[in-house]
Amino acid sequence: MIIDSVDFYYASMPEVTLEADGSQDALLVRVVADGVEGWGECEASPLTSIAAFVAPRSHGVCQPVAASVLGETVDGPDDILRIGRNVARNSMDLLQAAHTWSGIEIALWDLLGKLRDEPVWRMLGYTENHAKLPYASMLMGDTPQETLDRARLARSNGFLAVKFGWGAYGTADPRDDADHVAAAREGLGDDAQLLIDAGQIWGDDLELAVARLEALEDARATWLEEPFVPHAFVAHAALASRARTVGIAGGEGAHSVHMATNLIDYGGVRFIQIDTARIGGIGPAKAVADHAVRHGVTYVNHTFTSHLALSASLQPFAGLAEHRICEYPVEPKAVALAISSNHLLPDENGEVRAPDAPGLGIQVDLEGLAPYLRTVEIQIDGESVYASPGVPLKVSESV
Amino acid sequence: MIIDSVDFYYASMPEVTLEADGSQDALLVRVVADGVEGWGECEASPLTSIAAFVAPRSHGVCQPVAASVLGETVDGPDDILRIGRNVARNSMDLLQAAHTWSGIEIALWDLLGKLRDEPVWRMLGYTENHAKLPYASMLMGDTPQETLDRARLARSNGFLAVKFGWGAYGTADPRDDADHVAAAREGLGDDAQLLIDAGQIWGDDLELAVARLEALEDARATWLEEPFVPHAFVAHAALASRARTVGIAGGEGAHSVHMATNLIDYGGVRFIQIDTARIGGIGPAKAVADHAVRHGVTYVNHTFTSHLALSASLQPFAGLAEHRICEYPVEPKAVALAISSNHLLPDENGEVRAPDAPGLGIQVDLEGLAPYLRTVEIQIDGESVYASPGVPLKVSESV
Repeated sequence: MIIDSVDFYYASMPEVTLEADGSQDALLVRVVADGVEGWGECEASPLTSIAAFVAPRSHGVCQPVAASVLGETVDGPDDILRIGRNVARNSMDLLQAAHTWSGIEIALWDLLGKLRDEPVWRMLGYTENHAKLPYASMLMGDTPQETLDRARLARSNGFLAVKFGWGAYGTADPRDDADHVAAAREGLGDDAQLLIDAGQIWGDDLELAVARLEALEDARATWLEEPFVPHAFVAHAALASRARTVGIAGGEGAHSVHMATNLIDYGGVRFIQIDTARIGGIGPAKAVADHAVRHGVTYVNHTFTSHLALSASLQPFAGLAEHRICEYPVEPKAVALAISSNHLLPDENGEVRAPDAPGLGIQVDLEGLAPYLRTVEIQIDGESVYASPGVPLKVSESV
Repeated sequence: MIIDSVDFYYASMPEVTLEADGSQDALLVRVVADGVEGWGECEASPLTSIAAFVAPRSHGVCQPVAASVLGETVDGPDDILRIGRNVARNSMDLLQAAHTWSGIEIALWDLLGKLRDEPVWRMLGYTENHAKLPYASMLMGDTPQETLDRARLARSNGFLAVKFGWGAYGTADPRDDADHVAAAREGLGDDAQLLIDAGQIWGDDLELAVARLEALEDARATWLEEPFVPHAFVAHAALASRARTVGIAGGEGAHSVHMATNLIDYGGVRFIQIDTARIGGIGPAKAVADHAVRHGVTYVNHTFTSHLALSASLQPFAGLAEHRICEYPVEPKAVALAISSNHLLPDENGEVRAPDAPGLGIQVDLEGLAPYLRTVEIQIDGESVYASPGVPLKVSESV
């Protein structure tokens, strides 16, 4: 099959706020090859990722992503891998390319799965599709009491794993942070997993992180996520060696397989968190999962947006029974829910799993998304190099 | 002083080819604060870097670069550092941000230098401005004879250091590559430095690189540049341990200080090559130079574009006498030369140095650049979010 078209659909809430909530906008990608379509999603900054697809080339290894994709043959997983390698090489000097390619790569797996009538996880070589325990991500409260109340609420909503982070965590006195962490544990009770997300707040300052370790271990936190900026391996490794029971987690910023495996090999993380929509798609994410298995590290998805992104992010570790917890968008904005007509809801055990349907198993709902769609037009020297596609009246007809 | 405006000037050759020549286009940045202007340059993919400046925000840590820059106070080097930290945090999930910010950061140093009547290298803490030995970058020939002829030509043009790379190097039989390397040495004679650039051709395949080591050492090559993709530290370190006399070089792709220091700390490179217009500007490049000095590694600039970019790339190691060689754009395209009315030409000893004039010491020539300027307009929902600035009739009036 030949890749005939790649279309981007940029959707957002009418107002995008400064809260650390990645579900406020989305960039959907539709790829069509020989009349079959697949859908994917790129993480964050839709306009920039569109620009990376259409930008005039700067030289031989700074070509737009489109140059390595349109007109290419895709008959199997090896073709997706090959095209990915070409993007990496031909767009070597175009930093944003990895994010743009991620959505396209995901769409190619969806397309291939529909064609072969197979779920993506099976095409990745897994024979089983294990249920995951979703964790709820919440902002740390403004006061310990608020954090405690939120923890109780999450627990009463059925979550057995809850992550707290951002807000003022890490910026105040370590004793205040300790109060928040203790409150979170109190609200969750003894038998739920507590996860803490520092959101890179300490840069690469080891001691600021070490000052929080005791409280985290007293509260039996499972992990401390992103204590540092993502490439600060020296600081990560030093912190990991100072921690006794709490594991260091990170990796959501990885935009290549090596970036993630380095965090394992050099940073000493015990949990590697991969955003399929940033790292280059499902294939690279699976390569990281394989590396994690070999090194006794737990793979976790990073997902804060739609259920299309959620399905894509579950596939790379669907077959790994012992990699149990998954990030689950608990309170996504309306635009994120509007992207699809079906959703991956927790079952009676409170668990979620990747669909067993062909491809990603998610029905994109362009009509439902219509109120949120935004149009982009880019002109260079007065000539249009990009214009958003029109929204088809009935999506089903084009499948 | 308050940053009043940031303007981007996108210039390119009428035709941009697929050759590995980064001088075919440019993205100049003009920053004005309280009537003083500074100029910088972003490396590669102008449209994408413009998009990263103006893109609607996706959430609190995926804001456009503009959000952290416009209206900010800049009275000294610490302010540039502070704004850079804000960009890194507020645009955490916007991959292209580092490239966009690089050009702005460079312009801020230029602006500050003009205001203080000081060259940038002095503001960086250096007391001396050492001459550098420029090396010529050339494509490997199609045949060993062609490589030999090019080496002789470079030598007869006065270059005492010459880099060969790209072309077919690394893709053919190792014996053919060996013939090219031997021919290059023959053409250069015994007393010139030979540098070889593999352009990431071996991905992370150690043995493909090892198969070339003997020929490189027989020809007394100073370095083997970018044998692997930039984050492949395991492969870099393994190759470095297999090499006896040839040093491994790399780092041009680094878009953060840690990426570059990791290549030193974990990758075992002996030469760290920094593109000031990618890594986040002059301040981050200087931080890498400091790290290199502490670890006995040689700092080298990566520069393939204009003399504005060249001046910016010389500043971070201007004061390091023992870090002797510099990349020098030997045959840049006309657009790269048209950017400025003055150029950093080799002196009677064949050496170049950073200007002693205030700021970067480069006069941007917008009038001369006019034939190459391209206009960009970006609309979202029918409203313009970006339009290229008009070219002022006389630049000097606005200084």
